[in-house]
Amino acid sequence: MGNIAACCRSFWCKPKNPDIRISLPAICFVWQIAMIILFGLFVRYDDESDAHWSEHKHKNNITSDIENDFYYRYPSFQDVHVMIFVGFGFLMTFLKRYSFGGVGFNFLIAAFGLQWALLMQGWFHSLDPNDVKVDFCIYIINADFCVAGCLIAYGALLGKVSPVQLMVLTLFGITLFAVEEYIILNVLHVRDAGGSMVIHTFGAYYGLTISWILYRPKLDHSKNLSGSVYHSDVFAMIGTLFLWMYWPSFNSAIADHGDGQHRAAINTYLALAASVLTTFAISSLSAKKGKLDMVHIQNATLAGGVAMGTAAEFMISPYGSLIVGFVCGIISTFGYLVITPFMEKYLKIQDTCGIHNLHAMPGVLGGVVGAITAATASESVYGHEGLVNTFDFEGNYAKRTPATQGGFQAAGLCVALAFGIVGGAIVGFILRLPCCWGDPSDENCFDDEVYWEVPEDEESIPPILEYSSHMVGKNTDMMSQSNYTVEQS
Amino acid sequence: MGNIAACCRSFWCKPKNPDIRISLPAICFVWQIAMIILFGLFVRYDDESDAHWSEHKHKNNITSDIENDFYYRYPSFQDVHVMIFVGFGFLMTFLKRYSFGGVGFNFLIAAFGLQWALLMQGWFHSLDPNDVKVDFCIYIINADFCVAGCLIAYGALLGKVSPVQLMVLTLFGITLFAVEEYIILNVLHVRDAGGSMVIHTFGAYYGLTISWILYRPKLDHSKNLSGSVYHSDVFAMIGTLFLWMYWPSFNSAIADHGDGQHRAAINTYLALAASVLTTFAISSLSAKKGKLDMVHIQNATLAGGVAMGTAAEFMISPYGSLIVGFVCGIISTFGYLVITPFMEKYLKIQDTCGIHNLHAMPGVLGGVVGAITAATASESVYGHEGLVNTFDFEGNYAKRTPATQGGFQAAGLCVALAFGIVGGAIVGFILRLPCCWGDPSDENCFDDEVYWEVPEDEESIPPILEYSSHMVGKNTDMMSQSNYTVEQS
Amino acid sequence: MGNIAACCRSFWCKPKNPDIRISLPAICFVWQIAMIILFGLFVRYDDESDAHWSEHKHKNNITSDIENDFYYRYPSFQDVHVMIFVGFGFLMTFLKRYSFGGVGFNFLIAAFGLQWALLMQGWFHSLDPNDVKVDFCIYIINADFCVAGCLIAYGALLGKVSPVQLMVLTLFGITLFAVEEYIILNVLHVRDAGGSMVIHTFGAYYGLTISWILYRPKLDHSKNLSGSVYHSDVFAMIGTLFLWMYWPSFNSAIADHGDGQHRAAINTYLALAASVLTTFAISSLSAKKGKLDMVHIQNATLAGGVAMGTAAEFMISPYGSLIVGFVCGIISTFGYLVITPFMEKYLKIQDTCGIHNLHAMPGVLGGVVGAITAATASESVYGHEGLVNTFDFEGNYAKRTPATQGGFQAAGLCVALAFGIVGGAIVGFILRLPCCWGDPSDENCFDDEVYWEVPEDEESIPPILEYSSHMVGKNTDMMSQSNYTVEQS
Repeated sequence: MGNIAACCRSFWCKPKNPDIRISLPAICFVWQIAMIILFGLFVRYDDESDAHWSEHKHKNNITSDIENDFYYRYPSFQDVHVMIFVGFGFLMTFLKRYSFGGVGFNFLIAAFGLQWALLMQGWFHSLDPNDVKVDFCIYIINADFCVAGCLIAYGALLGKVSPVQLMVLTLFGITLFAVEEYIILNVLHVRDAGGSMVIHTFGAYYGLTISWILYRPKLDHSKNLSGSVYHSDVFAMIGTLFLWMYWPSFNSAIADHGDGQHRAAINTYLALAASVLTTFAISSLSAKKGKLDMVHIQNATLAGGVAMGTAAEFMISPYGSLIVGFVCGIISTFGYLVITPFMEKYLKIQDTCGIHNLHAMPGVLGGVVGAITAATASESVYGHEGLVNTFDFEGNYAKRTPATQGGFQAAGLCVALAFGIVGGAIVGFILRLPCCWGDPSDENCFDDEVYWEVPEDEESIPPILEYSSHMVGKNTDMMSQSNYTVEQS
Repeated sequence: MGNIAACCRSFWCKPKNPDIRISLPAICFVWQIAMIILFGLFVRYDDESDAHWSEHKHKNNITSDIENDFYYRYPSFQDVHVMIFVGFGFLMTFLKRYSFGGVGFNFLIAAFGLQWALLMQGWFHSLDPNDVKVDFCIYIINADFCVAGCLIAYGALLGKVSPVQLMVLTLFGITLFAVEEYIILNVLHVRDAGGSMVIHTFGAYYGLTISWILYRPKLDHSKNLSGSVYHSDVFAMIGTLFLWMYWPSFNSAIADHGDGQHRAAINTYLALAASVLTTFAISSLSAKKGKLDMVHIQNATLAGGVAMGTAAEFMISPYGSLIVGFVCGIISTFGYLVITPFMEKYLKIQDTCGIHNLHAMPGVLGGVVGAITAATASESVYGHEGLVNTFDFEGNYAKRTPATQGGFQAAGLCVALAFGIVGGAIVGFILRLPCCWGDPSDENCFDDEVYWEVPEDEESIPPILEYSSHMVGKNTDMMSQSNYTVEQS
Repeated sequence: MGNIAACCRSFWCKPKNPDIRISLPAICFVWQIAMIILFGLFVRYDDESDAHWSEHKHKNNITSDIENDFYYRYPSFQDVHVMIFVGFGFLMTFLKRYSFGGVGFNFLIAAFGLQWALLMQGWFHSLDPNDVKVDFCIYIINADFCVAGCLIAYGALLGKVSPVQLMVLTLFGITLFAVEEYIILNVLHVRDAGGSMVIHTFGAYYGLTISWILYRPKLDHSKNLSGSVYHSDVFAMIGTLFLWMYWPSFNSAIADHGDGQHRAAINTYLALAASVLTTFAISSLSAKKGKLDMVHIQNATLAGGVAMGTAAEFMISPYGSLIVGFVCGIISTFGYLVITPFMEKYLKIQDTCGIHNLHAMPGVLGGVVGAITAATASESVYGHEGLVNTFDFEGNYAKRTPATQGGFQAAGLCVALAFGIVGGAIVGFILRLPCCWGDPSDENCFDDEVYWEVPEDEESIPPILEYSSHMVGKNTDMMSQSNYTVEQS
């Protein structure tokens, strides 16, 4: 019996070996080759990107090339793309010695994730799954959205997992996302253009559950590396600002043409502005002498955008958007001050970037706001045609009322939560299997040295070198003098 | 009598207490709540962002959603938005220990300013001030423009004022801007699409006058922090480049559709390119061995864009744009070399970012160039219809001649100057009232420590820690040896 | 005879004097004035940016301002513009003490280059060279493309040449580019929308040949500055990510309207994603414990975009794009590991940024892929009309077959190579002439101190100052104690 326990312990608690020389290249090659094969089997250009476009134009009486969906969607796509790679990437550079890992692994998993997401999107949404047509209109922007879910989850695990684990997390995350999104958007017919539920709630609980299962009791051994330095905080502001500026594009990218996109952008823009003011207020209020904390400014200012993910395309009205942003800035900053330390101490959930405050709480709130706004929608506010367009009350759903829609919206939120928690539990368990994951030991968390060739330090730049050598020289002189005196005496 | 003087002195010269724990949260909450109430009372979606859009389309025979103004203006808006938050924000990170304040307070006041600007724009330009309709077309881009004026003013005060003072400066700045802009553009019917006068001249003299009133005689006590370090200069280049690249969007964002926007972008692009070469030339010419100065490269390269703010949409011709850029690069760099030190020493105007060189002088020059270009416009160059379109010689102004227009342009410049100086004097006086402004003492200027939780320093990253402790160890050893020898002897 | 040799030696090997106080301002002023004169003589607004646009509209039955080419091309132009100034600029900040030179000189030569390129483009492509009309449609995007060729060449020479040499390199580079591009695109009627051959192959071999001629045998004297530091690598990632994200815009910017642009963007996007995975794989595989190298991640991840420059607008199919990216990531990373050191040691080619791996090899590969894809094009895949549109088989070329086109594509690649190597040899020879180039000595390469006023160092920020002074104090104390003991003894 003792043997079995010992055996179990040795099975589950093998000493960490962060060597990824075989595992990372293997997983990259195998999965990239799999992508090539699957793309070869399933993916084709769609009508708008195929060389037969000119024939397609004649057939469909399209008079001008500007009707090609490329011109409608490409600018929005590029904004979202910048959010994924520069926004999320640089937001994660804030740790003093994990900037390479923050921006680098973000790059790796996003580049893999979007290929897999493109396929999953195609399979779930194509008319004919054997003939997936790629276009920018839906699939490529949606692929970036899928990836966002996994990057949010990465935020909770930053510095504590290996790139191999991240690749696995991404593979499963994208798969779960595609199923969850299909159920929420297609089966339940829920509206969620900016993904408060589908992206943020799912991604955050997925990451938090994994982090809970991978709990590291001795993480304080890496305590000296778990903070920022002056310039790493400035780097993180690059991420924050690009996320903040382009969030209106994120929430409006796949909203309805015309008024839908226009309204989604305005609502998000207003909510974000309000979040900034309340974040500064609470951050200042909570510290001695009113000193502001960069962690709050980098993160909680974005909470308004997260919370408008569902309701942005509804007629929530400009002041409604401001109220949502106002409340979210407060809740999110409060989360960084109180809830994150509480969760770490009592719930054993270590959340490096505080995604619970930036994505989980505002995401859930966004889902609730969306449900309420939908339930209270009326023809007097939207107009008949507007109501039908906004909520897509057509075909099978022609008879759905706003109140019913509100209920379905709430159901969608529950589905997102369930997928996040159950999916996270399964993937967390897989990532804990004693396998050559290459994750760092508790002493080496938050340290780029583990996975990167880190250059010699700032110290060795010449003016300082000189200075140092000067000092060392002095010391040596003194040493010899001292020695001399010792000898003398 | 002596008592009164002493009393006055103690009234005006209370010791500084940079505690903003009550004042900053209070001002943020009160103003954000005021915004919510005012938006609730006054702001509605306009026809293009309202759910009634589909009915609006039928009524107005609009056939395609692409006619929604969102698709015309959104990309330009995003470029301008990046200039405001990343451009201005990072340009102000150049100080060695005020990068948090530079990019952070820029973020705060821009987020507040654009809400207030949106309201002011609506009240001044809406047909019905009780029913302000928000759209991207005019108000949201214009709100960013208003904010730009206040951020320019912030440049003169960087590191010397508290966030509370900045919020007040922004509130008044936006208000003054709206009145000034209304007088210049609507009453005088002046053209100023890129805001050489309305934005740059006004903003710069507003900031310089405030800085003059808040003059700090002992600012050299913070001298050790008033420069840059290597990497803070690289951060500032992010701001410079995004401003430089997107300036054609800034000057063309609200120009006339079609040829107006097209021409404004080309002219600005050419002027900016010419500024870069003359800035490098003068910077190199002025230093021993021709060494370039990052301050010049970060700022004076942008002067061409400022100076084209008015004339960009006119037929100034490509080589005319190059000449404007050529001259501005020289003047602006020369300003940094000679005028800024002169102003600080003799005029008691402390101008942290040198906005006099980047915005004031090129702005005035831009106004003059605009007036001359307008006065010399002719039907042979513009065509009859082109002349009418470009200068909007319609309705009440149908009989205005180019020469008269030139006169009005010059009058507009004077209005901008007057508003900047008088407004700045009033606001400067308010900001000097002995109140709990929380501004730093002369010793603590340019120091993030005052308002921010600054992380432990680069020094404490492990490789250096090790090294340091090694040295300290050595020293301790030596110390003990020395002591030993002392004892010995 | 000995005298002549000595004379030659003294002629060719004058001691380096990196004083550019006369030469840089002179060259900037002369060239900028020349630009103004030439623009005055030759450049006019085209129909779309002239104030006569409204008359042009009536004449050509254009109903809406949105038909102005500005709205088709401006967003793509801005993406490319960001790649040139932020992408290339920040990619070159990776050296520990050459970040000012990397981003600053990139700014200078790009700003000059685009003016000269605009003129050359106009002269070569205008119907009437005496009346060059500027529009965004072709010339301004193309000007950025020309500049890209010169910036690639700068990559090989980074840190080893003076700004004066760079200006000359750019003048000749743009000129050669214009001729080469005219021959390839117009005379040979080759398709190369993203410039695998025209931009990357030409630029890379141009730079490598110049670097070969300017070989510095004692470059290891600057060895201590030829690497990165932690934060300089993070800065370089800004460049990498903006290049990576916007590369689909680069390859699609001047592709055919409609399906051409759409397909080019998708193909480039897929190739780039595949490159990321294989770069991470090879980088990890090549190092002890699988540690990743930032140099590979910063550069080789972009190789897929380079290699898709020609074939992006063809029907290479999605999985074909993935294969190209897959192969390029491997080749490029392998190049950094093996070929660059080999070239430096045996071929005497010093390639600071490794442009041989990022631009030369993938560029040539891209040309070959393009030739093969063109040669195997068929009506069954493209449709008759699609084939004609894609390869522009019209007018004089109406009878060209895909197979012939493939041959011409290969010929185009040879032309690009020849122009790069021969042009580089001539320009390299000119740059070696004993003249006041102001290039740095071998000891001062990669050092901003030579051309820039470098600010005092991070060391002197207060918390550390304190610490240092504390230590120095200690040492002084010890010193005196030691001295004392010495004296004592």
